Amino acid sequence: MPSNFFGELFRITTWGESHGNAVGVTIDGIPAGLEISTAIIEEHLKWRRPGRKLTSPRKEQDIPEIVSGLFDGKSTGAPLSIIFKNTNAKKSQYQHLADKLRPGHANYSYLKKYGIYDYNGGGRASARETVCRVAAGAIAAQLLKPLGISVHTFLSEVGNISLPSNYWPSVNDLDNILTSPVFCPDNFTSQNIINLIEKKQAEGDSVGGTVKFLIKGAPAGLGEPIYQKLEAKLAYAMLSIPASKGFEIGSGFSASKQTGSSHNDLWQNDKTSQIKQNTNNCGGILGGISTGADIYGAVAFKPTSSIKKPQNTLDLNGKETILELPKDARHDPCVAIRATAVVKAMCFITLADAYLANKLAKAF
Amino acid sequence: MPSNFFGELFRITTWGESHGNAVGVTIDGIPAGLEISTAIIEEHLKWRRPGRKLTSPRKEQDIPEIVSGLFDGKSTGAPLSIIFKNTNAKKSQYQHLADKLRPGHANYSYLKKYGIYDYNGGGRASARETVCRVAAGAIAAQLLKPLGISVHTFLSEVGNISLPSNYWPSVNDLDNILTSPVFCPDNFTSQNIINLIEKKQAEGDSVGGTVKFLIKGAPAGLGEPIYQKLEAKLAYAMLSIPASKGFEIGSGFSASKQTGSSHNDLWQNDKTSQIKQNTNNCGGILGGISTGADIYGAVAFKPTSSIKKPQNTLDLNGKETILELPKDARHDPCVAIRATAVVKAMCFITLADAYLANKLAKAF
Amino acid sequence: MPSNFFGELFRITTWGESHGNAVGVTIDGIPAGLEISTAIIEEHLKWRRPGRKLTSPRKEQDIPEIVSGLFDGKSTGAPLSIIFKNTNAKKSQYQHLADKLRPGHANYSYLKKYGIYDYNGGGRASARETVCRVAAGAIAAQLLKPLGISVHTFLSEVGNISLPSNYWPSVNDLDNILTSPVFCPDNFTSQNIINLIEKKQAEGDSVGGTVKFLIKGAPAGLGEPIYQKLEAKLAYAMLSIPASKGFEIGSGFSASKQTGSSHNDLWQNDKTSQIKQNTNNCGGILGGISTGADIYGAVAFKPTSSIKKPQNTLDLNGKETILELPKDARHDPCVAIRATAVVKAMCFITLADAYLANKLAKAF
Amino acid sequence: MPSNFFGELFRITTWGESHGNAVGVTIDGIPAGLEISTAIIEEHLKWRRPGRKLTSPRKEQDIPEIVSGLFDGKSTGAPLSIIFKNTNAKKSQYQHLADKLRPGHANYSYLKKYGIYDYNGGGRASARETVCRVAAGAIAAQLLKPLGISVHTFLSEVGNISLPSNYWPSVNDLDNILTSPVFCPDNFTSQNIINLIEKKQAEGDSVGGTVKFLIKGAPAGLGEPIYQKLEAKLAYAMLSIPASKGFEIGSGFSASKQTGSSHNDLWQNDKTSQIKQNTNNCGGILGGISTGADIYGAVAFKPTSSIKKPQNTLDLNGKETILELPKDARHDPCVAIRATAVVKAMCFITLADAYLANKLAKAF
Repeated sequence: MPSNFFGELFRITTWGESHGNAVGVTIDGIPAGLEISTAIIEEHLKWRRPGRKLTSPRKEQDIPEIVSGLFDGKSTGAPLSIIFKNTNAKKSQYQHLADKLRPGHANYSYLKKYGIYDYNGGGRASARETVCRVAAGAIAAQLLKPLGISVHTFLSEVGNISLPSNYWPSVNDLDNILTSPVFCPDNFTSQNIINLIEKKQAEGDSVGGTVKFLIKGAPAGLGEPIYQKLEAKLAYAMLSIPASKGFEIGSGFSASKQTGSSHNDLWQNDKTSQIKQNTNNCGGILGGISTGADIYGAVAFKPTSSIKKPQNTLDLNGKETILELPKDARHDPCVAIRATAVVKAMCFITLADAYLANKLAKAF
Repeated sequence: MPSNFFGELFRITTWGESHGNAVGVTIDGIPAGLEISTAIIEEHLKWRRPGRKLTSPRKEQDIPEIVSGLFDGKSTGAPLSIIFKNTNAKKSQYQHLADKLRPGHANYSYLKKYGIYDYNGGGRASARETVCRVAAGAIAAQLLKPLGISVHTFLSEVGNISLPSNYWPSVNDLDNILTSPVFCPDNFTSQNIINLIEKKQAEGDSVGGTVKFLIKGAPAGLGEPIYQKLEAKLAYAMLSIPASKGFEIGSGFSASKQTGSSHNDLWQNDKTSQIKQNTNNCGGILGGISTGADIYGAVAFKPTSSIKKPQNTLDLNGKETILELPKDARHDPCVAIRATAVVKAMCFITLADAYLANKLAKAF
Repeated sequence: MPSNFFGELFRITTWGESHGNAVGVTIDGIPAGLEISTAIIEEHLKWRRPGRKLTSPRKEQDIPEIVSGLFDGKSTGAPLSIIFKNTNAKKSQYQHLADKLRPGHANYSYLKKYGIYDYNGGGRASARETVCRVAAGAIAAQLLKPLGISVHTFLSEVGNISLPSNYWPSVNDLDNILTSPVFCPDNFTSQNIINLIEKKQAEGDSVGGTVKFLIKGAPAGLGEPIYQKLEAKLAYAMLSIPASKGFEIGSGFSASKQTGSSHNDLWQNDKTSQIKQNTNNCGGILGGISTGADIYGAVAFKPTSSIKKPQNTLDLNGKETILELPKDARHDPCVAIRATAVVKAMCFITLADAYLANKLAKAF
Repeated sequence: MPSNFFGELFRITTWGESHGNAVGVTIDGIPAGLEISTAIIEEHLKWRRPGRKLTSPRKEQDIPEIVSGLFDGKSTGAPLSIIFKNTNAKKSQYQHLADKLRPGHANYSYLKKYGIYDYNGGGRASARETVCRVAAGAIAAQLLKPLGISVHTFLSEVGNISLPSNYWPSVNDLDNILTSPVFCPDNFTSQNIINLIEKKQAEGDSVGGTVKFLIKGAPAGLGEPIYQKLEAKLAYAMLSIPASKGFEIGSGFSASKQTGSSHNDLWQNDKTSQIKQNTNNCGGILGGISTGADIYGAVAFKPTSSIKKPQNTLDLNGKETILELPKDARHDPCVAIRATAVVKAMCFITLADAYLANKLAKAF
């Protein structure tokens, strides 16, 4: 069943395995006339790049090749195909793991479903696929650029370290995000997170984390009612990211603790006589459709499943064995760090799709 | 843009407004030969029925008419169309609200998107649409019946009352769910929730809640990798339910507090020599595909937006006004109660879709 | 597998059996603000109405009920559901046919596929479904109205009677179409067709026919390249109509007899200095995208499969038997007559879909 | 709007321009466990290869690179990506045509739609895209292999030369197809076609042609009713091929000349007591679903639009000019020859899609 695509009108289709020749993405539905270059893509890729402090030391250079869809630097209405060669694949590294069930990994469920499994670096199930999402997100961002939409994502919690529950980033804070090695806007929290991750990494362990997203400048009207609500599309996008375990929009799970009189955002005129809400518990979406306010929420990520500590497990025949990764195996100690780039990309793609759909809302 | 459908292979399309002539659902993709009757649908509808204690006193009888797709009581491969006449619609009740922005409601965002809005009972945005989901869920359940899948949903939290954080329902508890007026399996918590809701209702207020789902008996192999992961489809399904604000699968947001060595579920042989996991933090899904273990998670619901307390708001022209619902207005004090039926239905529909997709996984 | 829908952005989903309670269509994707009424639908339905001279005497009144999607007579962005009650169903008429294979009908192939078959009037396979297409076509026509698009369909051939091969309708001819009992614009040919059909009907036989379509006023830019070419969508639409056997766009099959130098339409300035083509062999479409010229083509229909003459056949067990329809059975002697309304409807729906898609072609 | 894909369950997405770096196809929905190799693809590609007698002398070697989706030579459920590098692109050849409207080509309609056009060799609109279809067709054929389905396509008409109207290929004839330089099974007709094409080529002209397809061994049950009828999907597939102008299934346009008593195929027991039809006017499909008989039909192709004869035309500003292709320009004198490979590929892809869909027809 085709499942390697995302988006109805701005549609990405990805392919490729972790340790195959290449991974790639085809973007179908890009309106014509958009200025596109590899530079735009590389700007987004640098947020996800492995080799950064506290992330996997795998040295992929992630050089995007745009092999179709451009003419004189502009989109033509034809599909854009972007390819990333896998220059640093190490198939041999995985052969000794071939017949072992890896805790937290997908080899058991893939085997049950398909009867076959590419064990090299997780094959298709590898997070390497997300480089394609980030590249596609850069194109989506380019489409949205004239609207003045910006998407900010940051780490809000890792292990027992977190930003205050009522934390809301200032403009300065948003600027801080990209200077923090862990994409955390608050310097103090950022340092604590770094310390914690380094400790876990030293122990051969990993740790989970929560990524928050904040979308500023989205116009009212994005999202479709009933099943294709904007928050439903965002939830779908976020839970498709490897290792994600939860999603919140606006007040999220805290909404279940509130009363209607406290949770309802009241309408009022602001100083410029524009209709606004005095609070934003709804997260910028009502009835599945954006209101024009900030859209925000959170995505939970589990700890990296690949850890250096030896783990008891079974082989494919159900016999007990021990899984021990090679000393030079390359894994992120906290996937949530790099996931900030992927959450951002999925926001852009989801919004681009919603933006195109919204062109069809009114007859006149 | 078409958005009133859900599911790729088991596809439901719904239509109808809260206070129009009728609402209905067409289910396309039902395999032929399935025994179907209105009795099956009514069995599921009773869990959602308004008029129950602590829910809206609107007295819709919700009688499903199956007007196509059956021959000798069996599905034929043709689409099944189910219609619910709106016997208790009260359009006049809403006229005085026509030009007021309703806090927590969708009339502002609908107006911005469409330039027109059916203000009668929320029009298309009304939760009345969910009766169609429950009916479709009953058909999906019938398709899954031979697999031995059961879906249990229950209220785990309302306001400051909640089941213990490590609560896991026993078989007895699961039986208790349907006897609790608030679908809460623990008698003590159930009574506390009832007390709280009655208090809020008396104050003219409402309260939020969290619904948990537990799917037992699902085989390994359900769900597609990458974008159509089973948890992504579930998240999409749940965030499409009116008033939902968050979704968790397995460990959910608590995963971000854990380490890999504690979160990884280890593979081991159980007494029957079957490959199982010693824990189930993953929630029965790895890499987007079910493992054969219990699938569980949670959905957060905000407090009902319609409350009897007067609220400050604006009219459509931005002029300040007060919104006061009529004394006999019919609203649930806690939408999460009836949402248990809708969460259950969306689980069934999502699983039916995944079950059909899984028939295509292997070439031989 | 869901298959009862047509259109990507202007999407119709139909349901219902020939002799069930009702048939209906849900249209999802109608932009908001469009004026819609049952009167508009009835205007289109009268072209398809059974009971007309030379068509089936079945006296369905085909009264469309719009049960959702309107507010103050305008579309709201919500799905429009239209229901036609089957007031003149005669199930008993078909019981004696239940176990006989009907030549030209679908009961054998349906049984092989589904293992079950609704034999009443062809069940889902009945042309009764096309009333839904015509109703949906009326809504599509309403969407296209401001563009000044008109669609004309007419009978060009029945048996050995046909319009001249180089025939092209004048404006007067187009007006004649609706006054001809067989929708043939040329009075002489119309009368000859009538005579032939009456002769075949008297013999208990039926006859095939070809329907031509001519779309005037379509702007350049409709249709998508590669797989969703406008002619491909039209072909798909037309071959989905019961009894259709062939499709041509522009020069059609005669193109295979021509040379490039004769077939190529040359570009030239017309008197108004507009870029036009001197001929229109391409049928108004180049590379899958409309050029702004007339779009035209043809659809072939086989003779009605239901005939009064007795026919040798088999029962479901493979035993030889004779199929003899009841004397009062109601069938069209030439399905192509009423098919003119369905071809027209499918043109409108296909164009409406292409029109919405074209709103997404350019970034600015 | 995404339009570069074909198929619902066996889905191909293609990308690339005629004179860009590469063209490629991603196939999503291949069931796992299928043996796949480049050798299988090359077997199909040789039927389409340019450089063959009477086809374009462009010397593309069309070497398929499979860059994803295989493990140990088998499909894994992951998407298969196939890339063809453009080794013989000649961009400079097209610069002098950049601002001229090319008769029969798509640059005018593309410009009107997108406001931008890649003039190099037709850019995305080039028939070079069809190499991707043939590669995907080879994979589809591999999926269908265990069913014993074979697809034969042949040239039945070019200009005024054609096979007899009642021609039906014998088993010997089918073997002849691939030895004829123009894929025509009858030696005498084949030679006449060759002579005609050589004559037209010498005149700097081109000629149209008709391709017939014959599918043997397809089981009953393929195709979905109403809108996704097997003949509708085939029509959609065929009219998406560049230069196609018409489609017939079974009796095709000749059906409009027949009566019901002559056109109806009668059911009878054959010698092996199997239920069969005595004739096959329906073309192996009833009600949109295959009957198990041979599926056959025809596709019309216009003459190649690119001819060496000078043609009067306009430039983009509407000024009169003359279009004269370079003497060494590479074009097929009759596109129908190579189209036989593409028609065959589209048959395989359409059948593979229908085959997967049919796995979902019955509940048990």
